[in-house]
Amino acid sequence: MDYFIREKVSDILAKRVKETSDVTVLGWVRTKRVSKNIAFIEINDGSTLKNLQVVILNPDEFEVLSEINTGTSLKVVGYLEEVEGREQSVEMKAEKVEIIGDCPSDYELQKKRHSFEYLREIAHLRPRTNTFGVMNRFRSKMSYAVHKFFQERGFNYIHTPIITANDTEGAGELFRVTNFDLSKIPLTDKSEVDFSQDFFNDETGLTVSGQLEAEVLATALGDVYTFGPTFRAENSNTTRHAAEFWMIEPEMAFCDLEENMQVIEEFLKYLFNYALEECAEEMAFFDRWIAEDNRIENLKEIINSDFAQITYTKAVEILKEADKEFDYEVEWGIDLQTEHERYLTEEHFNKPVMVTDYPRDIKAFYMRLNDDKKTVRAVDCLVPGVGEIVGGSQREERYDVLVEMMEEDGMELEKYDWFLDLRKYGTVPHSGFGLGFERILMYISGMKNIRDVISFPRTPGNAKF
Amino acid sequence: MDYFIREKVSDILAKRVKETSDVTVLGWVRTKRVSKNIAFIEINDGSTLKNLQVVILNPDEFEVLSEINTGTSLKVVGYLEEVEGREQSVEMKAEKVEIIGDCPSDYELQKKRHSFEYLREIAHLRPRTNTFGVMNRFRSKMSYAVHKFFQERGFNYIHTPIITANDTEGAGELFRVTNFDLSKIPLTDKSEVDFSQDFFNDETGLTVSGQLEAEVLATALGDVYTFGPTFRAENSNTTRHAAEFWMIEPEMAFCDLEENMQVIEEFLKYLFNYALEECAEEMAFFDRWIAEDNRIENLKEIINSDFAQITYTKAVEILKEADKEFDYEVEWGIDLQTEHERYLTEEHFNKPVMVTDYPRDIKAFYMRLNDDKKTVRAVDCLVPGVGEIVGGSQREERYDVLVEMMEEDGMELEKYDWFLDLRKYGTVPHSGFGLGFERILMYISGMKNIRDVISFPRTPGNAKF
Repeated sequence: MDYFIREKVSDILAKRVKETSDVTVLGWVRTKRVSKNIAFIEINDGSTLKNLQVVILNPDEFEVLSEINTGTSLKVVGYLEEVEGREQSVEMKAEKVEIIGDCPSDYELQKKRHSFEYLREIAHLRPRTNTFGVMNRFRSKMSYAVHKFFQERGFNYIHTPIITANDTEGAGELFRVTNFDLSKIPLTDKSEVDFSQDFFNDETGLTVSGQLEAEVLATALGDVYTFGPTFRAENSNTTRHAAEFWMIEPEMAFCDLEENMQVIEEFLKYLFNYALEECAEEMAFFDRWIAEDNRIENLKEIINSDFAQITYTKAVEILKEADKEFDYEVEWGIDLQTEHERYLTEEHFNKPVMVTDYPRDIKAFYMRLNDDKKTVRAVDCLVPGVGEIVGGSQREERYDVLVEMMEEDGMELEKYDWFLDLRKYGTVPHSGFGLGFERILMYISGMKNIRDVISFPRTPGNAKF
Repeated sequence: MDYFIREKVSDILAKRVKETSDVTVLGWVRTKRVSKNIAFIEINDGSTLKNLQVVILNPDEFEVLSEINTGTSLKVVGYLEEVEGREQSVEMKAEKVEIIGDCPSDYELQKKRHSFEYLREIAHLRPRTNTFGVMNRFRSKMSYAVHKFFQERGFNYIHTPIITANDTEGAGELFRVTNFDLSKIPLTDKSEVDFSQDFFNDETGLTVSGQLEAEVLATALGDVYTFGPTFRAENSNTTRHAAEFWMIEPEMAFCDLEENMQVIEEFLKYLFNYALEECAEEMAFFDRWIAEDNRIENLKEIINSDFAQITYTKAVEILKEADKEFDYEVEWGIDLQTEHERYLTEEHFNKPVMVTDYPRDIKAFYMRLNDDKKTVRAVDCLVPGVGEIVGGSQREERYDVLVEMMEEDGMELEKYDWFLDLRKYGTVPHSGFGLGFERILMYISGMKNIRDVISFPRTPGNAKF
């Protein structure tokens, strides 16, 4: 082929191409218009939202033109010319047009618009649309931003296990992983499933969080972060839940909750800023076509704001005094619902807000117990339009307290001996947080459904592709 | 804490610290030596292999000294002084020493050396050792190198699904993923497992490769790559196999096998070069303590060599003519064994070699069929000391040929209608390859066992931590 010879449309339109004659472009036809004396083909090669306009000055001499449809893959050789007064500053005059692959007329991505619902059913073709081309490039750039942020600050990227015998959140939402033939599950004498015969000689599932292992590595390396897939076997068919999603989990030794919150704020602002500066094309698209509000302006405002900070107890007070009817009644001890979170961040503070020190009973066993014995050093970061976007905590680094918490939660201590060891041998205060990558993509782009920010969403009843 | 105040040992030793007085260091004690008039504590904080030497000039005044053991976590405040004629150019004179966390004497990481086998059993503590601190930092840096290489070349990072209903390699080595209670598997009228009642209403497993989905995205975006976990439920207890490992899978539209091989060679050389230039401390450590050969010199040689290239058929000829007894006899049609691969790359060529055009029968259904109908456009890249390190191919882009291949392999075409659609609508030649991240880490470092290049290895019988 001409893999190394071809010029990408993104480079051509940004005038990053050295030669302007004998230029080869490879891509897919978006539209074709043919008249007697001139023909136009818009070509897209996936490198940018924009198409390259290919001009054919002598259409009679190009027999191939009649076989070209929307979706046809083409090789075009020609020269580049600057044009004035049009959105695209460069076009190509074709000298050679060659069909690489035909596209029959039953191709579903014709010019007409499709609903997002329909496009989900053809997830193998939707990356060829404007919206999902933009989203895929955006996702890639923002992934890189995550790595850049942490690598430039001396954090170590770690790969925590996907298959695990732990249940970090204790929520019982683990998918089971097994090598058993499901029609012939071996049983013990007591007629229980005999996991000792399974691949790992143990009951295993898909991780819901890499945090426990991240703590292992933070208490050796200092600053670490995960960025990998996590799973929830939760039967919720909402616009915000997927069974498989990517999570970012930094974990920092020698770091308390106040410092943790500083990192959270810095990280979020870095991502927003990166989107605005490095993803200008994508942000302009979202702003115009996807988001209901003015995303760019709103992100700028947040970058320039200081996040508010209150305790859970104070948050409950505010909500009780609010002149508003909530579906879920507010009482100290409840888990805040999205409606409460949104009231706080949108109506009361009108900016992001960190809520700290939640009741111990609604949070995980590993969070550091406060002196009041009723609350823990947890933090949720709430943002307008979404509610919770980051959850974190200072971890319980005191051996005796942690054992007590785990016993209260009925956990098997032997199974977590390694986790307790971190508190036995040179324990240190440490903190971390978790950020759902899809959630942040939805937030920045204004995309409303998690199924539209990940290429092949896994939701109840859906593992196609 | 002093998270933002503290200086990292790596910065101190590299003299990247602005102030030299009132410096705070947080870390773990590696050794302590106390005499009447002076005491020395070596502190490591995970930021580098090297320790910071803390000097206490008036040990009598530091009562805390007697409680400090190997493994104790400390906060030390003091001033920095340059020292001459020693490996470390900077040391700290302590003014304040504070114990953060005790370390009892049953701590297993005392000064003595432990075998790698033993350290695997305490995988939660081994990142605190020199070797595994180095390996973790190396892994992080090399992960970043992977992203840098592709991002700088306009590739899009994509997240392909982990839970899947496909079996890309057709090897039947999928772990099953289910939400069923294994003691109560629902059956159909025909007494078969009723997968329609499972979470995804289908039989699902853990992906062995993201390639098929990568093809979807390459034929929309052009150049893409995956970097994520993949799985094999293969009961092989070798030094080279893990049930869970990270794989890098680039996929490129408009790219044939020759061009694919160029990208492979460029990518490998980039990684080797990155290791030498950006991971000097780690490479020096591997060279001295881990590798049996001279890794640095050997990598430099490979960077400066041109990889050899032969067909499988030619390789078989060479092997047949070789003056060497192989355990597995060589015959056209066999899958090359590691002994054959190593003979080719180590003895015959004495450099990396690309072997192309393998028999169709031993390769996957999606590889492009050659005109001889017997071989496919596959490539394996073999390197000295290891054998195969990269496997790739040009993909079959012709609809009719692909259908024929799939039918021959007895695959359910309906299940792969979406994969076939890529060939129906604007098909393009495309190619890609897969690189096991652990394999490349082993190769560069000289580490012999895959269990020692990943923090929490998953192997038969082992899902602890």
